[in-house]
Amino acid sequence: MDKRPIGMFDSGVGGLTVLKEFRKKLPNEKIIYLGDTKRFPYGSKSKEAILEISKKCVDFLISKNVKMIIIACGTATSQALDSLINSYDIPILGIINPTVEYISNLNLEKPRVGVIATSGTIKSGAWEKKILEKIPEAKVINEKAPLLATMAETGWTSNKVAEYTIKEYMKCFKDIDILILGCTHYPMFENLIHKNLEKNVKVLNTGTILAQYTKKIIETKKMENIETSGQFEIYLTDIEADTDFLNIAEQFLGEKNINIKEANF
Amino acid sequence: MDKRPIGMFDSGVGGLTVLKEFRKKLPNEKIIYLGDTKRFPYGSKSKEAILEISKKCVDFLISKNVKMIIIACGTATSQALDSLINSYDIPILGIINPTVEYISNLNLEKPRVGVIATSGTIKSGAWEKKILEKIPEAKVINEKAPLLATMAETGWTSNKVAEYTIKEYMKCFKDIDILILGCTHYPMFENLIHKNLEKNVKVLNTGTILAQYTKKIIETKKMENIETSGQFEIYLTDIEADTDFLNIAEQFLGEKNINIKEANF
Repeated sequence: MDKRPIGMFDSGVGGLTVLKEFRKKLPNEKIIYLGDTKRFPYGSKSKEAILEISKKCVDFLISKNVKMIIIACGTATSQALDSLINSYDIPILGIINPTVEYISNLNLEKPRVGVIATSGTIKSGAWEKKILEKIPEAKVINEKAPLLATMAETGWTSNKVAEYTIKEYMKCFKDIDILILGCTHYPMFENLIHKNLEKNVKVLNTGTILAQYTKKIIETKKMENIETSGQFEIYLTDIEADTDFLNIAEQFLGEKNINIKEANF
Repeated sequence: MDKRPIGMFDSGVGGLTVLKEFRKKLPNEKIIYLGDTKRFPYGSKSKEAILEISKKCVDFLISKNVKMIIIACGTATSQALDSLINSYDIPILGIINPTVEYISNLNLEKPRVGVIATSGTIKSGAWEKKILEKIPEAKVINEKAPLLATMAETGWTSNKVAEYTIKEYMKCFKDIDILILGCTHYPMFENLIHKNLEKNVKVLNTGTILAQYTKKIIETKKMENIETSGQFEIYLTDIEADTDFLNIAEQFLGEKNINIKEANF
């Protein structure tokens, strides 16, 4: 047993979609969530910038005595995960490998896999590379969605703007089997995304897969916490940032009076 | 007479709205335009980051032997102009002071002035401060528009997404006399903006005002170039960036085969 919390970070509200899944699948784990609202958005930053920022987030979470780190952010996973794993001893998990493993286990024949993500993630080619390593006969269709993360931070996830934006971005996914939501902000648009795809397309919320994957690891390594229950703490690097974080968090996690603390770095 | 070119910079396509006005009002001046697409968007960056970036842009333009610098960017004007003026000898102009002077010269009684701009610009309070210094009885209504610059870079300036986004952002401007487009990307949405405001609202394109202001300064200081005609050169810090720059530039400036060079910094 390891009673220490799990650390989790994202650029803003996106990782809440991961936090939500962790609370369902790992109800006894305590989670320390860090939203780096001071540096949002990550999606348009350089690889070097993302790595530098991600190290700061990891260091902050380590200072809170966490037992592992979850990168609840598609951009940071795609651009920094490999380097971070080389730089730290603490276990660090991102959203890509568990998702690719999940798809591989579906044993689809020549799967056509759509990936929608931030510009930075798509440019990194990380999803396509990992998918083709594991499933060489897959066909990958990439789409950059530079507006969605900002729209989610603003709380615009079901208005007319969101509706037409999703409609536009889904146009290139006419003929796919699977759609990976390659940015953790995007499950907030899940209803609209489903509405604009063929019914048989499987839409992957990477948070659900990552939570399941983490559960297995924690159980195998006997790192479970069996004492607490669904506790979480939230830190933001900029409480005054241009995001509707508190409202979105309360609505999304179904809790009132969430206490948000400031992380100063 | 001073035959050297005028230098101009923005984070991306926004400054083209200023370039267009300069070509109309100062047809003999040669202009060197720098779009810092590598670091776009500026709107969500810190003041320190904007200042550091702006210095790099100014240094690049000075290396091209320009006679003056035009900050064709609302965010960089609001956060960096004052410091830049203190750090350099070359004349540097931004979009705020000329616009505030223009409004002041309208001699309106208790003008109600709307400002729409990036998050960084609105948070800096620069527009409100300068307006109230000059017109203390003015009422200023501020609105952050975190999506618009990215939408303009994508070329989404007249589709359904743009339509509903503008409609949403215009809601707070029900009772104003003047609307300042505080980010140089926004004149690309001018038709939609007009459509969502009362007919009597004066919408200010800061590029038009800045071009007129610059013309006066150049004439007063006898810095005109009377030899060339409407030439311009365009540099981008990232030619592969996530922007539809070339198409937008060709469409917006009404020219074909625009040659874009890379600025390496």
